[in-house]
Amino acid sequence: MAEGIDIKKESDLISWYNQVVIKSEMLDFSAVKGFAVYRPYGYEMWERSVSYLDSKFKSVGVKNAYFPLLIPESILSKEKEHIAGFNPEVAWVTMGGDTKLDEKLAIRPTSETIMYDSYSKWIKSYRDLPLLINQWNTMVRWETKETRLLLRGRENLWQEGHCVFRTNEEADKNARDILNFYKQFLEEMLAVPVLAGRKSESEKFAGAVTTYTVEAILPNNFMSQAATSHNLGQNFSKPFDIKFLDEKNELQYPFQTSWGISMRSIGVMLLVHGDNKGLVLSPHIAPYQCVIIPIIKEERAAIIKYCKQIESKLKEMNIRVLLDSREEYSPGWKLNEYDLKGVPLKIQVGKRELDSKNISLKTRINNEQSSLAFDEIEKLKEKLEEIHEKMLENAREDSKKRIKEEDSKERFVKEVKDSLYVAKASWCGTPECEEKIKNETGATSRLIPLENEELISKKCIFCGNDSKVNAYFAKSY
Amino acid sequence: MAEGIDIKKESDLISWYNQVVIKSEMLDFSAVKGFAVYRPYGYEMWERSVSYLDSKFKSVGVKNAYFPLLIPESILSKEKEHIAGFNPEVAWVTMGGDTKLDEKLAIRPTSETIMYDSYSKWIKSYRDLPLLINQWNTMVRWETKETRLLLRGRENLWQEGHCVFRTNEEADKNARDILNFYKQFLEEMLAVPVLAGRKSESEKFAGAVTTYTVEAILPNNFMSQAATSHNLGQNFSKPFDIKFLDEKNELQYPFQTSWGISMRSIGVMLLVHGDNKGLVLSPHIAPYQCVIIPIIKEERAAIIKYCKQIESKLKEMNIRVLLDSREEYSPGWKLNEYDLKGVPLKIQVGKRELDSKNISLKTRINNEQSSLAFDEIEKLKEKLEEIHEKMLENAREDSKKRIKEEDSKERFVKEVKDSLYVAKASWCGTPECEEKIKNETGATSRLIPLENEELISKKCIFCGNDSKVNAYFAKSY
Repeated sequence: MAEGIDIKKESDLISWYNQVVIKSEMLDFSAVKGFAVYRPYGYEMWERSVSYLDSKFKSVGVKNAYFPLLIPESILSKEKEHIAGFNPEVAWVTMGGDTKLDEKLAIRPTSETIMYDSYSKWIKSYRDLPLLINQWNTMVRWETKETRLLLRGRENLWQEGHCVFRTNEEADKNARDILNFYKQFLEEMLAVPVLAGRKSESEKFAGAVTTYTVEAILPNNFMSQAATSHNLGQNFSKPFDIKFLDEKNELQYPFQTSWGISMRSIGVMLLVHGDNKGLVLSPHIAPYQCVIIPIIKEERAAIIKYCKQIESKLKEMNIRVLLDSREEYSPGWKLNEYDLKGVPLKIQVGKRELDSKNISLKTRINNEQSSLAFDEIEKLKEKLEEIHEKMLENAREDSKKRIKEEDSKERFVKEVKDSLYVAKASWCGTPECEEKIKNETGATSRLIPLENEELISKKCIFCGNDSKVNAYFAKSY
Repeated sequence: MAEGIDIKKESDLISWYNQVVIKSEMLDFSAVKGFAVYRPYGYEMWERSVSYLDSKFKSVGVKNAYFPLLIPESILSKEKEHIAGFNPEVAWVTMGGDTKLDEKLAIRPTSETIMYDSYSKWIKSYRDLPLLINQWNTMVRWETKETRLLLRGRENLWQEGHCVFRTNEEADKNARDILNFYKQFLEEMLAVPVLAGRKSESEKFAGAVTTYTVEAILPNNFMSQAATSHNLGQNFSKPFDIKFLDEKNELQYPFQTSWGISMRSIGVMLLVHGDNKGLVLSPHIAPYQCVIIPIIKEERAAIIKYCKQIESKLKEMNIRVLLDSREEYSPGWKLNEYDLKGVPLKIQVGKRELDSKNISLKTRINNEQSSLAFDEIEKLKEKLEEIHEKMLENAREDSKKRIKEEDSKERFVKEVKDSLYVAKASWCGTPECEEKIKNETGATSRLIPLENEELISKKCIFCGNDSKVNAYFAKSY
C-alpha cells in the first residue's frame, strides 16, 4: 500500500506531481509507452466531470453520438492546415489481421474530418441546422516529447463537440458559450480559477479561425491550457462540401465550431491544489467527501456502532462517505492515507466522541480541527461548501500574485524565461515575433483577453512595432 | 428526410433491418468500411443502457476504470488459446507519425491481457481481493465476414468487466450474477426475453473455463447472443503471474471472471420487435416516450397553447416527451415518421381535443386508439408500463412457439438447416460432433441450460453416442 510523498512540491514540481498521481492511485503507467491506466480513484473524478459537463451541454440542445475510431488518410488530409498540424503525431493502422490495408487508417487525433464527412450527407437544408453533436471518447496523439500522466499522454480521455450553424454569429456565440461552461466546470467542480481568452495566430488550432482558451496559472508560474473552443468559420465546410439550402433556396456553406476538454484538467487541479502530503480535492469532485476513522482502544462494538450511525446519517444527506473500520491498519496510517488521497474531511470517532455524542473533524486544507454534535451533523453540508469556496479563493489570490504587467523588454525576457512571473504585456501579435520570443525565452503567448482592454503600451514588448493587443506570456506543460 | 420502409420484415429480415436502422436515424455507414456512425437517436438508447447497467454493476461494488486502447503483441500473446482466438481479427498499429514501431500494437479486441498485466502489479495480498473493475469503451475486431450495423461491426460499443477473487466459487457466482443483470437489462429495458445458459466447448470464449450466455430467439428462428460472462478460472492468472498471499501467508493464484455486453443487444431488440412500419421501442429505452402532434385546421394559437400545457404536464411527470409543432410537415407525415422511429405513444391534439379537454392516444404496438381526459393524464404512466409488459409478453409467447424439442436426427437436421425451429435436443457435447453438425446444417449449439434437466434422450441427437446435456441449436448472426 501507499507510502508518503517524499519529494517537496516547491523543490521539484513535476517529480512531486508524478509521485502524487501514482501513490494516490489515480493513474498508473501501463505496458505501452505513453499510455496511462486510469484507475478507479482517478476515473471516478472523470465520471463526475463527465456528468457535470454533459448536463451543461444537453441544456443547450447538444446531443451525444459516436463516430469511428479510425480515419482514412484521404479524409484526414482534406483540410490542409489541419493535416499539417496533426500528421506528425498520428498513430497509423496498416494491417487488419494478416492483411496489409489498401489505405492506412489514422487513430483519431480529433474527429473534425470523419464527422464532417458524415455531416455533408446529413445537412441539406436550413431546417437541419443548427446541428449540435458531442462525443465522449479518447484520442491518440503520438507525442514524441516526454509524456506526463494526465498532462501530456499518447491517449487522452476527452469530449469533442462539433456544431454547425447558419451564421458566423451563431457559431461564435456557441464557441464562447461553451468556453464559459468550461470555466464554470473548472471553478465550480475543481476549484481551479482560470483566465479566458483567445489564442494567437501561432497558437490556435490547426484549421480554426479563432481558438478560445481557458488557462490556469500554476505554482511555478507556468500556465496550463485547461480547455479550448474553436470557431472554425467555413474552413471545414468548404473542403468537406457541407452545404445547405437557405430560406431563399440558395446554397450556402454553414459555419462550424469544435470544442473539447480532457482529463488533463484534473492534472491541472492537482498541480494547483496538491501539497506535500498529496492530493487536495474539492468536495465537488472528490470520490469520498468524508472518511470516518474509528479510534479504538476500548468499547470497540459501541464505537463501530456509532460510526455506522454517522455513516448512514451522512448517506441520507447524500454525502459521499467512507467508513474505514479495517483492523489491520492503524488510525495514524489511515490519516496519512486519506491525506494522500485528498479526502476533504476526516471524521475521527473514539471513546470521547462516543461518550459526548460528538464527532471530531479535520479538514484536508489548513488541517483545521473542530468538533460537531451528532445532532448538528446537518451542518457538514455547509462545511463542505465552505471548503470548496476557500480552495477557490486561495487559488484565485495565489494566481493574481503571479501575474505581472510588464513594459520593459529586458525584465519581460527575464521574467518569462526564469518563470518569475506570468507576464502581461502589449504585443504586436505576429507569428514572427512569437517565434522569436519562444526561441529567446522558451515561453509563448498563452492568451489574449476577450474584452477590449486599454493597451499597456503602444509598442510591442518584444519587437517594438505597434502593439495590437495585451497578452499573457508564460511557459507551459 | 425519411421515407417509409419498403421491404417486408417477413420476406427479407436483414434487408428490412438495414433499412430500419438507417432510416430511423439510429446509425449510419461511415467512410471506413465496417465502422458505423452511432447517431444521436441510436446513441441515446445506448446511454440509457449504460446508465441502467452501470448502476447494477456499482450495486455489487464494481468500479469503473480505463485501460489503454493499444496492446503490445507480446502481451496479447501471453495466453495461448486467447491469442489463437483473436489473432486473425486484430487491427495493428505499426507506425507512430513517420516512425515504424519496434513492436506492433493491437487495438484492443478485448482487454484481458492489458488489464491483467496491471493486475499482476496491484494484487499482492488477500486484502486486495476481490478486485472488481469494469470499463466502458469500444473494441475493434477486423471482421472478414460481411459486417452488419450493430450485429457485426469492426468497432463495437460495449463494456467489459474484469474481476479477481480468492476462490473459484466466488468467481463462478460473480459470472452468474452478472449474467442475471444482463437478463434483467434485456427484459426490463428492451423487452427482449432471453434464454440463459452456458456455451459448449467449441463455442466458449478463447481462454475461458466456462462461458455463460444469454440468447434471444429471432423471428426467423435464428438465435442471437446478447451478452456473455466468463469464468476464467486460473487460465489467465497463471501466465500473467497474478498471485496473492493468503491468510496463511501462502502464495496463491486467484480466480478471474470477465463479462461483456455490447450495443448489439439494441440490434437484437430491433430484430425482435420492429415491424413493417419501422422501429418499435419499449418506453423504457425510447429517447421519446410520447410525441405530441398538433392537428390544426383552425384555432392554431389555442391548440398550440393546449399542446404546450400537455407537454409541460408530462415533463413534470418525468415523461420524455417531444412536441412537434413544425408547420412545414403535415400531421400524416409526422405520424409515419414517429412510427418509423418507434415512439411508443402518439398524442394527437386538434380542435376536438381542445374543446373537450381530452387527448387522443395511439400506441405504436397494436395501433390501439383511446382517449384520456386531461385531468386524468397521470394515467399515462401506467399506460407506458402496460406497453412494456405487453411487448415482453408478446415476445415471450413468440419465442416459445419457435422452440421444438426434437429426438429424430432427420427432423433435427431439417429443422435447424432450414430454420424451421430452434431445436432443443440431447447431445454428447463434443467439439467433433459440433463441427459435424455445423458442416451439415450451418447451425451450432447456442446454449446448454444452467439447471440440470432431464435428458430428452439418452442418445446424442446427431452422433448417437451417449448424450450428456440438452442443448439449443440454431443458426445465428
